[in-house]
Amino acid sequence: MAQKPSIPKGTRDFSPIEMARRNYIFDTIREAFRLHGFHQIETPAMENLSTLLGKYGEEGDRLLFKILNSGDFFKDVDPSELQDPNLTRLATKLCEKGLRYDLTVPFARYVVQHRQDIQMPFKRFQIQPVWRADRPQKGRYREFYQCDADVVGSDSLHNEVELLGLIDYVMRKLKIRTRILVNNRKVLSGIAEVIGEPDKLIDITVAIDKIDKIGLDAVKEELIERGVSAEAVEKLQPILELKGSNEEKLARLGEILKDSETGLKGVEELQQVIGSFESLGHDCELDLDVSLARGLNYYTGTIIEVKALDAQIGSITGGGRYDNLTGVFGVSGLSGVGISFGADRIYDVLNTLGLYPGSLSSAVQVLFVNFGPEEALASEGLARLLRDNGISAMVYPEATKMKKQMGFANTEGIPFVAIVGESELAEKRVTVKNMGSGEQKSIPMADFASLTIAGMP
Amino acid sequence: MAQKPSIPKGTRDFSPIEMARRNYIFDTIREAFRLHGFHQIETPAMENLSTLLGKYGEEGDRLLFKILNSGDFFKDVDPSELQDPNLTRLATKLCEKGLRYDLTVPFARYVVQHRQDIQMPFKRFQIQPVWRADRPQKGRYREFYQCDADVVGSDSLHNEVELLGLIDYVMRKLKIRTRILVNNRKVLSGIAEVIGEPDKLIDITVAIDKIDKIGLDAVKEELIERGVSAEAVEKLQPILELKGSNEEKLARLGEILKDSETGLKGVEELQQVIGSFESLGHDCELDLDVSLARGLNYYTGTIIEVKALDAQIGSITGGGRYDNLTGVFGVSGLSGVGISFGADRIYDVLNTLGLYPGSLSSAVQVLFVNFGPEEALASEGLARLLRDNGISAMVYPEATKMKKQMGFANTEGIPFVAIVGESELAEKRVTVKNMGSGEQKSIPMADFASLTIAGMP
Repeated sequence: MAQKPSIPKGTRDFSPIEMARRNYIFDTIREAFRLHGFHQIETPAMENLSTLLGKYGEEGDRLLFKILNSGDFFKDVDPSELQDPNLTRLATKLCEKGLRYDLTVPFARYVVQHRQDIQMPFKRFQIQPVWRADRPQKGRYREFYQCDADVVGSDSLHNEVELLGLIDYVMRKLKIRTRILVNNRKVLSGIAEVIGEPDKLIDITVAIDKIDKIGLDAVKEELIERGVSAEAVEKLQPILELKGSNEEKLARLGEILKDSETGLKGVEELQQVIGSFESLGHDCELDLDVSLARGLNYYTGTIIEVKALDAQIGSITGGGRYDNLTGVFGVSGLSGVGISFGADRIYDVLNTLGLYPGSLSSAVQVLFVNFGPEEALASEGLARLLRDNGISAMVYPEATKMKKQMGFANTEGIPFVAIVGESELAEKRVTVKNMGSGEQKSIPMADFASLTIAGMP
Repeated sequence: MAQKPSIPKGTRDFSPIEMARRNYIFDTIREAFRLHGFHQIETPAMENLSTLLGKYGEEGDRLLFKILNSGDFFKDVDPSELQDPNLTRLATKLCEKGLRYDLTVPFARYVVQHRQDIQMPFKRFQIQPVWRADRPQKGRYREFYQCDADVVGSDSLHNEVELLGLIDYVMRKLKIRTRILVNNRKVLSGIAEVIGEPDKLIDITVAIDKIDKIGLDAVKEELIERGVSAEAVEKLQPILELKGSNEEKLARLGEILKDSETGLKGVEELQQVIGSFESLGHDCELDLDVSLARGLNYYTGTIIEVKALDAQIGSITGGGRYDNLTGVFGVSGLSGVGISFGADRIYDVLNTLGLYPGSLSSAVQVLFVNFGPEEALASEGLARLLRDNGISAMVYPEATKMKKQMGFANTEGIPFVAIVGESELAEKRVTVKNMGSGEQKSIPMADFASLTIAGMP
């Protein structure tokens, strides 16, 4: 016998019940995007490597899946360079294309390529898989979905308010209790300024981003190691220990940052975003968190991160404002703000907490027992009527023993079994059995054209 | 300025309106699959090359997109073999994975890998992209979607009847007038037998498969070239010229094939499938076509092909019965029958014939004009109420000139504009304008919680 086949590590098959669950998540997010006025686009799985390389740092370049050129992939390789091969250079000679690594770079490429056809502000969403040659581990896959919504071509903070509302909407629909953390890059810059270390902005944020994990003392040690002066670290401490309501924290930050124009601008932006969001009402908790940084080099204004309150899984959604989405493709000045739902982590949260709707099932709703060609044909005709009413139905394909067919219905979790035997055929009636309650009901065939689930036993 | 970015040849971006059209097709097919009791699965984009190689012939092996190994991809290559490289062997040393080429081989792999969890008969559907390094040309892409439904683990012809009904259902929903062509591999075998050329089955079917394109005389010439005797070709002619209703053709075939047990079995199967399908009623035309072969080496019973009547585009759906889906992975005896909808060709047909529903749009339904922070915030609150009623709504993010905002609504094709200005805010009313008719209506804010599209001007 051949070796049992397998799939590449870090990838997954999805079974029917897993698909039902994933579709529930994707459908919820897609509908939320649509209701908030976002337009769907799709881009190809493969992009030119020239589009992808250099966009995700050195580590990202290494994690790109590259596609071997078709035909004579070796034609550009000089045998002399193979004695001590430079793998990076060699890879770009063997491969012109790669699999997309995220949805942001393809979106930036799309905006530049199609800018003649795009009206600004452009609200786009995109739900597609991405691929990374990461070391697979629990909760980290080499193929996973991203669900991104971005508004480009508008600096208005109204976009932030709407995106926070979108997050709140999705989490309410999915019944996940969450806390949304917000911060602003300008506040971080202001903090670095007022403690007298404006050049250490990145060191400071990298260190304080870890405060949840390693605690305040370890953060202070790391800051010293990174060359931040002891005096600056002392000044930082009360900022990291900010307590109270968002309003209280913002008021205190306003005092601390009173000598930094950038910092005060950040406080003002946070005030507007948080104030508007709170006045509209919401289910999520919303917390100003000055230690939140998330890929600092990328975000220029608001920074957003979402955590599930009832599951230890890290961030399930994140995003923020950026200044120059398309500069790298030669079109500058285009700012935007966006969020990305981590569908695979949300899937893990719903699985852990058992938050799927009770009705979620991959099973067909009505199974007709097969008693032979004549009965099966009559059943197929009735199944068609049910389908026209939106009820999924199938005829068991083989006229095997009744017990086997009922066993199939049981194992599959099919809620109703319809029986069209010899006597039913003669009387033009169908016996329908509720597999849950065991209840049976005889229904005239003539009623099938208008039959609904409510009309079943 | 950087070079304008592009995407790999043979791949496509899909814009919002294109996505609305594609979703219409995919949603229709997905719902049809669900209503007919099929279960959705998904498999990874990447499969091990050992799973894919050798399954699609030599040409198929060449057309697989292969993925360069991560890390030191050169470690298994001996420099001595690079002087005169064997590209095929070299590729398998550089690459362990490839992109899926169709959905059938991954499905076979899935069935074998998860057979402990699968109850037979197993009705699965799968809607995912596939990738082929084909030369791109009109209507042929390097990334395209397949929509497959298969039943495995059942020999019953009821499956064929149901699949034909499924095709009829989808085409009726999409409003595509179609002709379904059916044939049976056993009939083809019988024909080769009775004309005295049982060993030339493949030559005969390859030749007669072209009769639509090149005509009867050219087919006869080709048969002679392929070594079929002149006598056999003479015997074949009346079979190829079969005319009349399906019943008449089947009756005539029964006579012609009376000395071939296999052939008669094929006629009997066709009679049952065609007879059942016709007795259930249908919109598609259904034609027995003895020249239909479609990948003959693969199908073992019924063969199905679907053509659009009003567009010259070749086959838009196809399928048939096969005997040994999983033999290549070490599990034999599993037969099945399936069909595959060609979503990209169907997309081209709907575009050509303008068959999309008039309501199909990617635009948001209601745009709130932005008059400033206070009005925008009130508008966002009202937009939320609309979204809770399933109406998509957005607030224009910037408080720019009214004319610019109305222009945005016009260009985007937004049907309704809602105005919450200073006076509306004071009166707690909203002015809603129908952008098509120009009609306006003043609606109390209190009514927004129950407002529907029907309640708008």
